[in-house]
Amino acid sequence: MNLKQLVGIEAAKYVEDGMIVGLGTGSTAYYMVEEIGRRVNEENLKVIGVTTSKATEKQALALNIPLKSIDDVTHVDVTIDGADEISKDYQGIKGGGAALLFEKIVAESSKKNIWIVDESKMVDYLGAFPLPVEVIPYGSTQLLNLFAEKNLHPILRRDDNGTIIQTDSQNYIIDLHIGKIEHPHQLADWLIKQAGVVEHGLFLDTVSTVIVGHPEGVETIQVRD
Amino acid sequence: MNLKQLVGIEAAKYVEDGMIVGLGTGSTAYYMVEEIGRRVNEENLKVIGVTTSKATEKQALALNIPLKSIDDVTHVDVTIDGADEISKDYQGIKGGGAALLFEKIVAESSKKNIWIVDESKMVDYLGAFPLPVEVIPYGSTQLLNLFAEKNLHPILRRDDNGTIIQTDSQNYIIDLHIGKIEHPHQLADWLIKQAGVVEHGLFLDTVSTVIVGHPEGVETIQVRD
Repeated sequence: MNLKQLVGIEAAKYVEDGMIVGLGTGSTAYYMVEEIGRRVNEENLKVIGVTTSKATEKQALALNIPLKSIDDVTHVDVTIDGADEISKDYQGIKGGGAALLFEKIVAESSKKNIWIVDESKMVDYLGAFPLPVEVIPYGSTQLLNLFAEKNLHPILRRDDNGTIIQTDSQNYIIDLHIGKIEHPHQLADWLIKQAGVVEHGLFLDTVSTVIVGHPEGVETIQVRD
Repeated sequence: MNLKQLVGIEAAKYVEDGMIVGLGTGSTAYYMVEEIGRRVNEENLKVIGVTTSKATEKQALALNIPLKSIDDVTHVDVTIDGADEISKDYQGIKGGGAALLFEKIVAESSKKNIWIVDESKMVDYLGAFPLPVEVIPYGSTQLLNLFAEKNLHPILRRDDNGTIIQTDSQNYIIDLHIGKIEHPHQLADWLIKQAGVVEHGLFLDTVSTVIVGHPEGVETIQVRD
């Protein structure tokens, strides 16, 4: 079992009968969704899933996990999702899979957020992983210029064919290759105020529980209630 | 000549040969775009227009005003646009025409911003005009609930047939019927940080020149350089 699978299965244990569960996106969340699907089918677990991307929606439907839109539930009990980086004070960068907008919308509506990662994602400071920023296409060149002026080293995300990647909301992703983010709250405040920025991948003061996969086993860190 | 036409024509005088001009949206900006079109055609004025909505783009194309995308210009010399309310300290609400996002993107890239209004738009405090907030459809019900909890009196904007209005970026508009906005900067800061909020209609510390139409003539107020 690889580390992503290990933490995916561990996190699924937090899901109980009757819960509304936010289902994250990405290669680690994939295993958690698979495990919840297994429990729904084999153990008759009763849950309602709220997805964070078209990709996860497709996976969950194939597993017969009952789904509702975030707009058709009163709340989400717990959201389980991966993260691209988690700092030693448990702030996170997400969005490597371009799903940060819906992930943040669901996370903000959730009573608890569990992040599942292999140990390579645990870092001292955020920023070695490029920070994704979702932007409106109209004006995105102006934002690229602005970010470059501010030494944020922006790169517009493209696929292997050179085509600009569009998110589930038809926006673009600009990745900021900052290196080390000294003041994440300050950066988040500045980014979100720029016209044309829809959302950024800094998930601050969000996570309740971090589940880290090590070769020697699972580590669970309770960050906040 | 009505007051909107009066200020529209007055504002067009600020446009000079060689300028890149942001063209606003709405019933007052309409007359400004018409006048720039007239000058382009009759006086051989050389300008490049940058539009703030599909509606204005259509109008400008019909008038043969040369256009470029905001992403194909290095800067905008001046943007001329209407406003729904301007307070006595020259803060504004825009977005009645649902074009606030592109209007703000263009305004932020502009060296100068001129607002043109009839005198009915000049108010002591902002907020009698409902404050438009552009939001991602996914999660918009959660935002409506949140805004209601915060006593912001939200109403999802619909057309006369009851269909939810979508912006040029396929988002929704939630109008906040606040009444009197005591602390616009504080409200703006809070709104923009909510996941799913793309942009809001508070245009703060933005305007360079306000041109107000009174029955007795035009008043021009220089707010900042």
